[in-house]
Amino acid sequence: MAGLANPPIVSKQPHDFGELFHRVKPQMAALDVFMRSQVECFEPEIREMAAYCLDTTGKRLRPTMVFISGWQGDGVVSGDLVRAAGVVEMVHLATLVHDDIMDQAEIRRNRRTAAREFGPDAAVLLGDALFSQALHVAAQFPTTEVCRLVAESTRKVCSGEIMQTLRRRDSNISLAEYRRMIDLKTAELFRVSCFLGARLSGHAAGFAAAADSFGQRLGIAYQIYDDLVDFVGEEERIGKTLGTDLATGKLTLPLMLLLEQVSADERADIVAAVRGGQPLGLAASKRRMAELGIAAGVVRAIDEELAAANQALEPYGSLPPVPLMLQLGTMLKMQVAALPAGVAAG
Amino acid sequence: MAGLANPPIVSKQPHDFGELFHRVKPQMAALDVFMRSQVECFEPEIREMAAYCLDTTGKRLRPTMVFISGWQGDGVVSGDLVRAAGVVEMVHLATLVHDDIMDQAEIRRNRRTAAREFGPDAAVLLGDALFSQALHVAAQFPTTEVCRLVAESTRKVCSGEIMQTLRRRDSNISLAEYRRMIDLKTAELFRVSCFLGARLSGHAAGFAAAADSFGQRLGIAYQIYDDLVDFVGEEERIGKTLGTDLATGKLTLPLMLLLEQVSADERADIVAAVRGGQPLGLAASKRRMAELGIAAGVVRAIDEELAAANQALEPYGSLPPVPLMLQLGTMLKMQVAALPAGVAAG
Repeated sequence: MAGLANPPIVSKQPHDFGELFHRVKPQMAALDVFMRSQVECFEPEIREMAAYCLDTTGKRLRPTMVFISGWQGDGVVSGDLVRAAGVVEMVHLATLVHDDIMDQAEIRRNRRTAAREFGPDAAVLLGDALFSQALHVAAQFPTTEVCRLVAESTRKVCSGEIMQTLRRRDSNISLAEYRRMIDLKTAELFRVSCFLGARLSGHAAGFAAAADSFGQRLGIAYQIYDDLVDFVGEEERIGKTLGTDLATGKLTLPLMLLLEQVSADERADIVAAVRGGQPLGLAASKRRMAELGIAAGVVRAIDEELAAANQALEPYGSLPPVPLMLQLGTMLKMQVAALPAGVAAG
Repeated sequence: MAGLANPPIVSKQPHDFGELFHRVKPQMAALDVFMRSQVECFEPEIREMAAYCLDTTGKRLRPTMVFISGWQGDGVVSGDLVRAAGVVEMVHLATLVHDDIMDQAEIRRNRRTAAREFGPDAAVLLGDALFSQALHVAAQFPTTEVCRLVAESTRKVCSGEIMQTLRRRDSNISLAEYRRMIDLKTAELFRVSCFLGARLSGHAAGFAAAADSFGQRLGIAYQIYDDLVDFVGEEERIGKTLGTDLATGKLTLPLMLLLEQVSADERADIVAAVRGGQPLGLAASKRRMAELGIAAGVVRAIDEELAAANQALEPYGSLPPVPLMLQLGTMLKMQVAALPAGVAAG
């Protein structure tokens, strides 16, 4: 586990994820080649724009999951897994292009978003073209299974995003509704990534179902972590603007747990902040979270999901992918532990 | 040809297309059932929004092409054709949802657009969900062919739209570039509709290729007609706002031909109008088009495309779909002839 003391799961460096990510380097190199080859598939007039979106500097969490769940040994690069990884990454990149339009984001990964670079109208269509190309690649497998699964997953990701968009500024979201939304918008693509990796690498049929469950729970854990980071993370370390959930009225677990702990008066202030009135600023909400040890409750929720993720893999401990999959969960745990002092300890 | 004297190709009435469309009524009824069943495939939380977009009041030109190109006799309803028709219609509806965001359109088919009803952010995602569901259905055919073709077509449609979006307010578009853009944004989905109809109904292999060419040329003719209507049509008859191309700086064939005919001074005014300066109003450009007989040149371009469309079918004149496909072209011709007096005659 050397090199994992400070694992940058959220990183500005491509593929710089420590030991685990060092092991998938040959697969990632093949994915680089594949993604570059995809640019040529777009109409000549929009190739430059497609290339801008298909850049290779992302974290590539989903491709990593495909490769790890389909692990067949160091240095073994399967064309099917590379293609599946390319499909899920392209779907993810398409959702980012559309997300950045909605959030009116200017910068992602230290450069202008597609919406900022080409205008929001072209960005809507460019995201569509990326989605279409992803499905086109998915349709190049011998059977319709990959296309069917990826198309369904994409629809679910969009549905989750729609739900969250429509409930901005809504302070009456239940824990079950929150979980449902992050399950759809984030865990769904994690889930299908792990399933496809396992399924396409010919491991036991039951293992694909286990990888599916693992991916789903890992995805939920990851989104809860991401929602926690938005309140307690340090921008320079994380590499993106934080504090946006409160500002945009998105009710996430940290705020939900805070609402449970405070007095009626304070609750009214927080609700007003979510609804856009802003009597409670980000600094104040962060201070109250620290005072009340809210982060500890959020970390417990992450740990529960990670435990469930690991449990799904238990019957398959002897398969090559499993130790690496477990490491993914460990890395997320360490990432949580690396948040500012006092957070994880509550 | 009774009932075709005044054929409303662009119509506010569902399926009210005269004799030809009367013959596809059983297929359209099956498509209604299919589209309604699709609503249930969306996540419960967004079903109402999906139903709003999957409404059955559209013209359904593309499903008509699927059914007609795969014609197997009156009353024969093929499940494969219904599904393919549903796929292309859903892709088309998704593009409309996204188009209406970009055009900031308020009304389509006499009710609020999805962007107006649910907000532009939700509409971006809703369009994505519709695209995804279309591809999901495409993946339910036994082979990957439908999914592959539809995904590729969708990408091309988006590419054509991107090109046109990026070249708004550009007065230096060549005829070849104009043709390429309408080929992608409109003819592509017409083409794949005709191809899939022919292909899925088991007619001779060569016929599918002929239907493909037919669909492409019909699509180009249709888009040129649509661009002409934007200048010379009557709003109450057409049922949508006209004159938008000049207002949004979209250079289309009528304006391109006008530019070729006028003096340098007048050309400067038109170029300024396209670029947003507006010294030449819509009324003035329409008057000059009438004076110079521009419409006649546009109609000649439509006729050329329709002749090429028909020619593609010549070797297959004995197949059941062909007479109906030819009728589609005839209907478009009659629609052109029904434009305000003097237009077609030039």
